Amino acid sequence: MRNVLLILSALLMLAGGLIAPANATTSAEAQTELPPLFRAEVKRAKQFVDGMIEQGVVVPVPKDPGGGYTHEQHKRNFRAIYQGGQLYRVTGDETYRNYVRDMLLAYADLYPTLGDHPAKANQNVGRLFWQVLNDAMWLVHAVQGYGEIRDTLTEAERTRIDGDVFRPAVKFLSVDSQRTFDRIHNHATWATAGVGMTGYLLGDQDMVDRALLGSDKSGKAGFLRQSELLFSPDGYYTEGPYYQRFALLPFVVFANAIEKNEPDRRIFEFRDGILSKALTTTIQLSYGGYFFPFNDAIRDKSLNTAELYEGVAIAYAQTRDPGLLAIAEFQDRTVLREEGLLLASDLAGGKAKPFDFRSMLLSDGPEGDAGAVAILRHGAGPKHTALVAKNSSQGMGHGHFDKLSWQYYDNGREIVRDYGAARFLNIVAKEGGRYLPENESWAKQSIAHNALVVNEKSHFDGNVKVADTFAPTQLYFSAKPELQISTASIDSAYRKQSVSMLRSLALLNVEGLDAPVAVDVFRARGKGDLQFDLPLHYSGHLMRVGFETQSNVAARPVLGDSNGYQHIWVDAVGQPDADNAFATWLLDGRFYTYRFVPNAGQEVILAESGANDPSFNLRRERIIIQRVQGVDSATFISILEPHGLYDGATEQTIESDSRIASLRYVTQGEYDLVIVETLTGEKTVLAISYDNDSGKAHRANVDGRQVTWTGYAGRIVLAGGGN
Amino acid sequence: MRNVLLILSALLMLAGGLIAPANATTSAEAQTELPPLFRAEVKRAKQFVDGMIEQGVVVPVPKDPGGGYTHEQHKRNFRAIYQGGQLYRVTGDETYRNYVRDMLLAYADLYPTLGDHPAKANQNVGRLFWQVLNDAMWLVHAVQGYGEIRDTLTEAERTRIDGDVFRPAVKFLSVDSQRTFDRIHNHATWATAGVGMTGYLLGDQDMVDRALLGSDKSGKAGFLRQSELLFSPDGYYTEGPYYQRFALLPFVVFANAIEKNEPDRRIFEFRDGILSKALTTTIQLSYGGYFFPFNDAIRDKSLNTAELYEGVAIAYAQTRDPGLLAIAEFQDRTVLREEGLLLASDLAGGKAKPFDFRSMLLSDGPEGDAGAVAILRHGAGPKHTALVAKNSSQGMGHGHFDKLSWQYYDNGREIVRDYGAARFLNIVAKEGGRYLPENESWAKQSIAHNALVVNEKSHFDGNVKVADTFAPTQLYFSAKPELQISTASIDSAYRKQSVSMLRSLALLNVEGLDAPVAVDVFRARGKGDLQFDLPLHYSGHLMRVGFETQSNVAARPVLGDSNGYQHIWVDAVGQPDADNAFATWLLDGRFYTYRFVPNAGQEVILAESGANDPSFNLRRERIIIQRVQGVDSATFISILEPHGLYDGATEQTIESDSRIASLRYVTQGEYDLVIVETLTGEKTVLAISYDNDSGKAHRANVDGRQVTWTGYAGRIVLAGGGN
Repeated sequence: MRNVLLILSALLMLAGGLIAPANATTSAEAQTELPPLFRAEVKRAKQFVDGMIEQGVVVPVPKDPGGGYTHEQHKRNFRAIYQGGQLYRVTGDETYRNYVRDMLLAYADLYPTLGDHPAKANQNVGRLFWQVLNDAMWLVHAVQGYGEIRDTLTEAERTRIDGDVFRPAVKFLSVDSQRTFDRIHNHATWATAGVGMTGYLLGDQDMVDRALLGSDKSGKAGFLRQSELLFSPDGYYTEGPYYQRFALLPFVVFANAIEKNEPDRRIFEFRDGILSKALTTTIQLSYGGYFFPFNDAIRDKSLNTAELYEGVAIAYAQTRDPGLLAIAEFQDRTVLREEGLLLASDLAGGKAKPFDFRSMLLSDGPEGDAGAVAILRHGAGPKHTALVAKNSSQGMGHGHFDKLSWQYYDNGREIVRDYGAARFLNIVAKEGGRYLPENESWAKQSIAHNALVVNEKSHFDGNVKVADTFAPTQLYFSAKPELQISTASIDSAYRKQSVSMLRSLALLNVEGLDAPVAVDVFRARGKGDLQFDLPLHYSGHLMRVGFETQSNVAARPVLGDSNGYQHIWVDAVGQPDADNAFATWLLDGRFYTYRFVPNAGQEVILAESGANDPSFNLRRERIIIQRVQGVDSATFISILEPHGLYDGATEQTIESDSRIASLRYVTQGEYDLVIVETLTGEKTVLAISYDNDSGKAHRANVDGRQVTWTGYAGRIVLAGGGN
Repeated sequence: MRNVLLILSALLMLAGGLIAPANATTSAEAQTELPPLFRAEVKRAKQFVDGMIEQGVVVPVPKDPGGGYTHEQHKRNFRAIYQGGQLYRVTGDETYRNYVRDMLLAYADLYPTLGDHPAKANQNVGRLFWQVLNDAMWLVHAVQGYGEIRDTLTEAERTRIDGDVFRPAVKFLSVDSQRTFDRIHNHATWATAGVGMTGYLLGDQDMVDRALLGSDKSGKAGFLRQSELLFSPDGYYTEGPYYQRFALLPFVVFANAIEKNEPDRRIFEFRDGILSKALTTTIQLSYGGYFFPFNDAIRDKSLNTAELYEGVAIAYAQTRDPGLLAIAEFQDRTVLREEGLLLASDLAGGKAKPFDFRSMLLSDGPEGDAGAVAILRHGAGPKHTALVAKNSSQGMGHGHFDKLSWQYYDNGREIVRDYGAARFLNIVAKEGGRYLPENESWAKQSIAHNALVVNEKSHFDGNVKVADTFAPTQLYFSAKPELQISTASIDSAYRKQSVSMLRSLALLNVEGLDAPVAVDVFRARGKGDLQFDLPLHYSGHLMRVGFETQSNVAARPVLGDSNGYQHIWVDAVGQPDADNAFATWLLDGRFYTYRFVPNAGQEVILAESGANDPSFNLRRERIIIQRVQGVDSATFISILEPHGLYDGATEQTIESDSRIASLRYVTQGEYDLVIVETLTGEKTVLAISYDNDSGKAHRANVDGRQVTWTGYAGRIVLAGGGN
């Protein structure tokens, strides 16, 4: 009974501080009972914290590196402090308060005795953990849990915990570890967040200032500077979505604390609302709930991740974007803070709307001038089509050598793939869950991506330092309904061969077809005697190969000996001509035909990853490689056509073969024209002028007829059958 | 308005004829409105039939073979007649009546003019279709549609349609095609069903008698004899579930007509209720909604299939088994007959209970003495564990040479696989959707199954005629909670080498583990210098191989040159010893360790299917082959251990390595003992006496200690750590 009252009062307290008059109803609801999503979260937290309480307070002397016992125990502890404090706030049950207090008092005994962690691996050594990053994460969580109970403690308890845990932890992170603290890097974001939030809790403005402006308070470092430099103006984080998700947490959590303690800073309006933008951008960088697996990404990382539970709740409290409620519904999770209660209430109140996934260009780099990611979407819902052009910069050490690469999603599946990282997270048998050697020898290499490879070498010859100094140029982006197109170029990936690459990727509505086709127009210009390989990594089972192939039936050779080529099995090779240069595959009830205009003497290699892999570390995935040799330049024109339906249950098969009769390429001056003709005779032309003057008219000839368009690119439909 | 009244009256009519007093409530419901499932079915049927009506009555002169235009049109027509009649019955809308009438009158013009179909392929030629089977299917459907409207026609219309369509169709099937009609085969079941149902409709007892007892009315052929010979006493159809599903339809539909017209025959009690049993057995032969892919099965064939919509509705009306409602819920479909309305009403009434999937032995053969299929299930729900021992007979032309093969399902996935048929149904690019050459060269071969292969030849040397004359012997079956076990033998698969095979497959609860392990005890005894290969076809990505391997990294060789071996790529080979003879793989968040006791000089081959496959017709799947050479006998002891958890979203990994320390094998006299010891020291023994005397006590020695059990097999737990 007493508990119930406490719950209600706690809710009134929460709701009071939370609900704007406009949401009086929500407030009313909230007072009657906890909304289901929030209730489930309370239950989940209780299960965890009650289990911890049973084991008693266990604060071991730090000893083990990542994964080891003391490492895991101190991780469990900061989660327990964090959630224990929140549970006390929500339930009023003093068991939780006392547990968090006793845990922190135990840390007060331990912390002052600590020096560098014995498992020190480099100069970024921590105290409780082998690296300072984990100490920062500990502080970010612990200070929040402490904040929920601090005002209920005795003066003596407060003094001990402030003085022997949090102040020394802050000193360690911001003074002893100043090198890390003043970096412009997500590790520093964790440190500044922990220090700043501690400052607010202890009423120590000096801590807050150093957190916001860097240890010398000059503003050259610190949280605000990080917010300016770590995200592009569009809220893109240069390492890619997998790391963006991780980097996001300290940003939103600390920003939330700043907003509560110093509302006048208008932190969520800082830099045109960059922090909320970074959150929604993270979500935009996903399909079917999974992040685009750029760079060193774990492919099965989805929106269902702790960082985004916090991010979605905090961003929703700021923006009230009903699409975020749909994301929370997908996650079926939230956080035990007032923002989580608001979100859960509005979700229960039926306020959710589908998240607005849409076509967009996301610039990369602090100034937005270091390349971009272009997302072209068609349709809506779980089966919609998405084309992703990765024209972003290298993204530091976790980046892959995949300039101008792309991916294509359809029917809820990844059709044109990105391998992601060669790593099995936390699986002991796979190098203890660390990155595998194949991450360097395969996953990062250019041939492992849908990127152009010259002379069997990776971009920038696989040199990260060099790669980080160059970025592609996003030349054009447009997302008109009938023609969505992105063009980018880079001329620094193969400087020795002075190769310039110019790639346009489009979703083109083809007259007579019910779904748009993806169009890939790739110009490569270089010097000397070059080999160009354009791989397509796809998912599916080959149904039909249009051209004759010579198959390796008796023994299966390897394609090359380095730069990833040593990991490719060659199934067959062929020399297609214009009429038969296509292959059709089936994935999950839908057919896809990849069709291209072969260059003179072009060879096509049908291959699979997984060679030179004695430890079975690689996934085995299909590859089609367009290869041209002994030229200085080449233009690759390819389209990907989704078609038909296969339903084994009803034994129904529709349009298992391509609906396209021909694909042709015409170049006139600077213009590129791609002509797609259907079996029923409709001709659709994609015309590219490469001229950004949106008002300028262009004309060219196709099949003896004049076609005209205005601006950078146009879609022209020619009546079929020569009418 | 008028329609509404007609609907209600129709429903009263249905309900009246249908609802037993006990179900008065259902009747009441039914009168108020159609239950959702039934309503959806009406809508679906309207979409189809209305579309047909728009095109008008199109009854072309037969010309094309299967897949061709006239073939598909006559198929569409019989579906339209069938559903059109049902729609008239349910809605009372005369549009449907008139359409069905006009369609049948058009057939009355056409049918008398027909001789053998021009696309005649063999002596089983039809009239409307290229083979008589399709003509029978036409009649089975058309006569049901006709039955719904016949009483509303004029005398003249009835006379024409009876006399120029149905009577000649019956004569064609039962007299002109007597050879097919009097066979004991599912083609004959379609014919007898069509003829018998026509007899009932026209009140022609002669037709009915010939349908039930064969054309000479002796009972040596006909529907009743088929019901005795085509299903085993346990309701198993010898060709396997994929074909059982197909064969089932005419049985249940005709039986339903018999029940309605001659209730005194008690057809559903015939042969101990064989027809309802055949239906429930079909469902038992599935996991996760998909049939066990025995023999020439299309793997994506699920319970969602027209035959089972009819079967489930009719069987439910007979048995009122609430588990069938759960199946209908999974199917989300039913049929437009009163049985469908009853089912939909009870489903809407919340009467569904989970279908009772359970461990069972299904004998094969009319007398139940031609082998069996043993199903061992552990747990319940979509992630339960199922071990399937395929000890059944060859099953005629669609059978595979896979004696004593097995499958294993867990966590909602097929872990130990059966390839099914090499066929892409209705996909033009794949031989027009027919069986592929690889169905003979791979899918049917013994090495393509989890079956023992001697000297790289398939069972019965791949001769179907010979294979069909022999069946395995099911020696024992028991499904006690802690130890479920099945044993079977066959000594005719390799008569030349006089090899006898004895295989026991079990689900054994191992002390200290949370899930049972699958145990495989395989004794092979032969004469001369033999090679034994025991393949395991599995799904998953290898995480750890316990033993050293020599990998084919530069080029990947093929394992052999015939009997399926030409389709196997060899990744690596190794010579494990007792301590390291295991491999662990990951599938869908769960780990599986296959562990075995190596024979002296045993080699292990890590391989993949897909070699010698220039047309990319094969799926590429992983294989582990245990190989022993130069012996006359061998015993293979293997276990499959599911363990741990991998969750990429939460980055949580648990028990990614096996929990088992050792696997040992002891043989004493006729006894086989398998000792499984966990990392924590618990020892669990599987002891097999091969003695069916359930009361007889047995004793043996393990690690110097006496173990005792009673009957055929026992599970003994030894205290760990030598305590």
